[in-house]
Amino acid sequence: MSLILHNFFRSSASVRVRAALHLKGIDYEHKSYVLREHEHKESNFLGLNPQGLVPALELNDGTVLTQSLVIMEYLDDAYPRHPLVPADRLDKAWVKSLACNVACDLHPLNNLRVLQYIGKELNQSEETVSIWFRHWVNETFTGLEQQLANDERRRTFCYGHQPGLADICLFAQVANNRRFNVDMTPYPIIESIYERCLQLPEFVDALPEKHPHAS
Amino acid sequence: MSLILHNFFRSSASVRVRAALHLKGIDYEHKSYVLREHEHKESNFLGLNPQGLVPALELNDGTVLTQSLVIMEYLDDAYPRHPLVPADRLDKAWVKSLACNVACDLHPLNNLRVLQYIGKELNQSEETVSIWFRHWVNETFTGLEQQLANDERRRTFCYGHQPGLADICLFAQVANNRRFNVDMTPYPIIESIYERCLQLPEFVDALPEKHPHAS
Repeated sequence: MSLILHNFFRSSASVRVRAALHLKGIDYEHKSYVLREHEHKESNFLGLNPQGLVPALELNDGTVLTQSLVIMEYLDDAYPRHPLVPADRLDKAWVKSLACNVACDLHPLNNLRVLQYIGKELNQSEETVSIWFRHWVNETFTGLEQQLANDERRRTFCYGHQPGLADICLFAQVANNRRFNVDMTPYPIIESIYERCLQLPEFVDALPEKHPHAS
Repeated sequence: MSLILHNFFRSSASVRVRAALHLKGIDYEHKSYVLREHEHKESNFLGLNPQGLVPALELNDGTVLTQSLVIMEYLDDAYPRHPLVPADRLDKAWVKSLACNVACDLHPLNNLRVLQYIGKELNQSEETVSIWFRHWVNETFTGLEQQLANDERRRTFCYGHQPGLADICLFAQVANNRRFNVDMTPYPIIESIYERCLQLPEFVDALPEKHPHAS
């Protein structure tokens, strides 16, 4: 019996968990939800995750884990192959803070539900929504590029020569940026890490367009 | 020499780290920034954290840790007294996912910089900004109340009878809600945990109004 990943093909947080599962070589099944049709707000899924947010990972014993960062940390604890964070306390904090810059400060502002609220409830144009999206990307990426430039622990990837938690978050975000024409010129290091990830099937297969239920 | 906490009295993420430091009984000094005067965007602080966000924790050797969740995890690794998360893998994932519901899904949307953007750039009224704030609180708290109601691990606090990471995030958020007249009636469990925290000096002393540089 394999793990069940409750997810949506385009969700950036779902891309992260898919990449983590692939990097660790863990088998899983998909259960897909179409967010625009609010399938994640129906009782079946709310029974699994009362927050009504994807992704959620269902373990063999029926336990459901939520929150992409937490799911990835659990996978790292339970499946030691290809560690996603370094063992050293300070290095771990550095990698996790890079990941949180994207996962806690940037992505939550550019979620589908937020963009929809701005369009519908605040009655803003599609162009204003795109400007909002790019504004928050630039706010975080400006500092992130600097952090990566300043730190000698960054090599091919955010930490050394193996992709991990920070690369996963960065990759999912840059992939997401494509839909909003974010100019990546000011971020050559971030772009180079994204390009390196694109050379690995574990990342490519996590992309929305590769999802078995992409539409 | 004690740790230096770079923080702002009212910042919710700063409240979290202050509460964690108090629970663990760790001495620290304050370096305060006034966000409305953009002191966190000046070169001194950007040199410490290129993201220009508080809190940041400066260690004795000059290492600077950022991101409140990461700082609290570091403190939990480095100072075992009063653990903030359970040792068991699944219990840890549960507590961390509760914390992330607030720290990754809710609070980032209600940050000062976001409320300012909606007011100034999107030209929305103070009332619309308040409605935005309450909307995202209610989105998360509805699910959170359910999660806490359904799980027998929740007792006096989110996990058992000792306050930890989830309680800290919940406490900082409910304290923040006071400024936006959030009706807590639908959330009796969340409110009861907040009230329990308010009985502990470690939490009370983390509140904005108790900060030595509150204004």
